[in-house]
Amino acid sequence: MNNILNDVGTAMDERTVFLISDQTGVTVETLGHTLLTQFETVKFKLLTLPFVDTVDKAKQVAERIDRLAEEQGVRPIVFTSLVQEQVREPLLRSKGLVLDFFEAFVAPLEEELSVKSSHMLGRAHGMFDVQSYDLRIDATNYAIAVDDGHGVQYYDRADVILIGVSRSGKTPTCLYLALQYGVFAANYPLAEEDLEASRLPAVLAPYRSKLYGLTISPERLRQIRLERRAVGRYSSPQQVSFELRAAEALFKKYAVPHIDTTHSSIEEIASKILNETGIERRVR
Amino acid sequence: MNNILNDVGTAMDERTVFLISDQTGVTVETLGHTLLTQFETVKFKLLTLPFVDTVDKAKQVAERIDRLAEEQGVRPIVFTSLVQEQVREPLLRSKGLVLDFFEAFVAPLEEELSVKSSHMLGRAHGMFDVQSYDLRIDATNYAIAVDDGHGVQYYDRADVILIGVSRSGKTPTCLYLALQYGVFAANYPLAEEDLEASRLPAVLAPYRSKLYGLTISPERLRQIRLERRAVGRYSSPQQVSFELRAAEALFKKYAVPHIDTTHSSIEEIASKILNETGIERRVR
Repeated sequence: MNNILNDVGTAMDERTVFLISDQTGVTVETLGHTLLTQFETVKFKLLTLPFVDTVDKAKQVAERIDRLAEEQGVRPIVFTSLVQEQVREPLLRSKGLVLDFFEAFVAPLEEELSVKSSHMLGRAHGMFDVQSYDLRIDATNYAIAVDDGHGVQYYDRADVILIGVSRSGKTPTCLYLALQYGVFAANYPLAEEDLEASRLPAVLAPYRSKLYGLTISPERLRQIRLERRAVGRYSSPQQVSFELRAAEALFKKYAVPHIDTTHSSIEEIASKILNETGIERRVR
Repeated sequence: MNNILNDVGTAMDERTVFLISDQTGVTVETLGHTLLTQFETVKFKLLTLPFVDTVDKAKQVAERIDRLAEEQGVRPIVFTSLVQEQVREPLLRSKGLVLDFFEAFVAPLEEELSVKSSHMLGRAHGMFDVQSYDLRIDATNYAIAVDDGHGVQYYDRADVILIGVSRSGKTPTCLYLALQYGVFAANYPLAEEDLEASRLPAVLAPYRSKLYGLTISPERLRQIRLERRAVGRYSSPQQVSFELRAAEALFKKYAVPHIDTTHSSIEEIASKILNETGIERRVR
């Protein structure tokens, strides 16, 4: 982002990385990100180029890579996920270090399965699978309808009901479960009266087997709440500690499985919940 | 799913695929899915095994793979994304066809960058990046607050405002943009009075440059609406056609860029919007 000298060195220290896809770029972004995070001492500048699906577009991108290679004096790194060989071709001839994940894995799969791959565009993320789409939309609409204690009359439909104090990560986890996996996830906030009485809200009683608790460290929760409301009881150290201690006591008392979200990403929280509950991923 | 004879043949025709990760499994699921969709004539049974992060766990999984290989008489396909070599080792010695994303690409990257990768766990999706987490949560909360025409007073903050008729895909696209990319996306439904008058709702006037339209085929929209409300004007062919024609006319009249979502996945819609508007991915 910085083209002039900085205290670390020159912008030349920043290695340009192209993430090139004939589809949305989600696959190649995932792969590139996973690999690059293993090189924490190197600074990368990422450029996602989706929908590179013709030879002409690929040639233009190859020219851009070559220009950058000359300007910067180092090879750009190029992650590609291109199904068609003729589209991959101009990039393979470019001055970038091209790592194509189709090329690497399709051949061994073809051999193992004794079939040729279709080399067709529009599969994977690009593939329009009406059933998956509808399921994800339904699950997302569901998550919104049953967010934050609303729509308890629809809890029969829930795969899982997340419970926890305000700002423990319930809503984004439910939405992620819906969008990524087509899982029906509701969430219910633990109110102060429930925490004080150390009793599960009555409305949750019929759904004990679906409950899953989220907890978080007091420091992190306080930080999150302060950004929302800088003053008052809501973000006071005493209140935050009380709520979390009481919520965790409740989880123990009612044997509700639970997870500490303090050091976890949304993906990680969602994946752990599915893993521990055995709820099936309806969409992948 | 089916262990007995079926009309296609035996369950043996179904090739078992393990998706094994030392983290959440999101990366290996994405990559595996992309590759497998290229083999449309083969039936796959997918098993995601996340958090395989010790040699012991890897050995147990390897035994499971070997058992399956013997029972089924064919090698299971094993996609792995395992950072630590010693964890990968037992799997590589198993009877599965093991395709590891790390092994394939880390070596050429190490050579190009002249540094050793950290081979550390807890990066990528597992890495807890507070800033990204907060951004995604903020964007998600924002998307909920400004869903379906609510919270127009917060439109200054929006990166993009999606407009379209009811059930054209606005809400899931906004949530996906938030969760996947940390992008602030609002959505506003086009009401019948706006469509009839062929005029942009007054509230959107100050934000013309942020607008992006979603449209969809009448057949598909009708199908979606019928699932919601089987009878009445809402899902009648006439009403659906009128709304879509009027919305598209509005997009043209006000030069609002727009996209047809009929054959697109949520990922694809989101990626196309970012690509065409140039809105930066804040999180990858």
